[in-house]
Amino acid sequence: MSTETARKATNIVWHQGNVTRDDREKILGHKGCTLWFTGLSGSGKSTVAVAVEKALWERGVSSFILDGDNIRHGLNSNLGFSPADRTENIRRIGEVAKLFTEAGSVNLTAFISPYRDDRDKVRAIMQPGDFIEVLIDCPIEECEKRDVKGLYKKARAGEIPEFTGISAPYEAPNKPELTLRTAEKSVDECVVACLEYLESKGYIPAA
Amino acid sequence: MSTETARKATNIVWHQGNVTRDDREKILGHKGCTLWFTGLSGSGKSTVAVAVEKALWERGVSSFILDGDNIRHGLNSNLGFSPADRTENIRRIGEVAKLFTEAGSVNLTAFISPYRDDRDKVRAIMQPGDFIEVLIDCPIEECEKRDVKGLYKKARAGEIPEFTGISAPYEAPNKPELTLRTAEKSVDECVVACLEYLESKGYIPAA
Repeated sequence: MSTETARKATNIVWHQGNVTRDDREKILGHKGCTLWFTGLSGSGKSTVAVAVEKALWERGVSSFILDGDNIRHGLNSNLGFSPADRTENIRRIGEVAKLFTEAGSVNLTAFISPYRDDRDKVRAIMQPGDFIEVLIDCPIEECEKRDVKGLYKKARAGEIPEFTGISAPYEAPNKPELTLRTAEKSVDECVVACLEYLESKGYIPAA
Repeated sequence: MSTETARKATNIVWHQGNVTRDDREKILGHKGCTLWFTGLSGSGKSTVAVAVEKALWERGVSSFILDGDNIRHGLNSNLGFSPADRTENIRRIGEVAKLFTEAGSVNLTAFISPYRDDRDKVRAIMQPGDFIEVLIDCPIEECEKRDVKGLYKKARAGEIPEFTGISAPYEAPNKPELTLRTAEKSVDECVVACLEYLESKGYIPAA
């Protein structure tokens, strides 16, 4: 048995005086959870996450965004884009989201996360209610029309292999806690929907 | 170029309205940082970390402990104890500590983390001042005498290969921000030393 594993098995007594998740949430004034945004490239995941973060901040709610910027260049910088690496990418993000959630943060993740199985595994490692799956639902025609970064054009030209929605599957959630149709709703309307959900379920106090 | 990488390069405009680290620290009322406890097995890292967490909580400071309990069975459950895996273990912990620090949390890590190079790499990825190395300094004779979990006995009997301090090296920091001599000081005294450090450097407000 390893040192760390052995410690885990035997130090339960030490931890009885621990600060609990409940305690942490008490000083923050809200509950921890993860809003897991999933959807096609260009559907608006990051845009909505950034706007939700701002709205939460204005209410004094402690939140944090995990996205390509801070994950792909840090924790997951040693992963590529093979199917196995994509799965490991989401697994690690899920584990980090779990830690933030247990710390009491309203954690926001903005990754395409195209595979249902990968997302379901994240849900399974969390406490019931901690994982809030938010489908950013936007027709691929609309995502492709926006194509702000020219990625769809490149994908159609075969320059990007395994591009979600073009040459790789996107598996939408069967029962997402929330669905935000970004082709029909404004960013502000999406933010309101997220905050209303968090309020109605008691994650954050009413404004 | 991958989708996520391409997004990173082009979505700078989207993020201008972002909540900044400064903003996050403002609503928390303190600065983010990582107290990185390092030392031999049985030196008291977890004991001190748990007591510091409690003292911070009593002051309303949001903190979180990363330790073997929540890392080895979660994020790093696919790592073993080979030299390469030990290095990857500390690298991932460092990246998560960085995220918590940027979220504004006073993050506490309690891992033997025996290699100077691994710890220095964590320091290097963080902003100056974010990484506070705390040497939990306890003579190995004392750790071995305590041997609460019988690990030293097993290591001496050759039952645990590459046990830090017995059959594997421990490289103490050259210039830790803090040194806590747990054979000479009480846990309470160690806690006071940590909190005084955090106060004096302006991470947390004076009590």
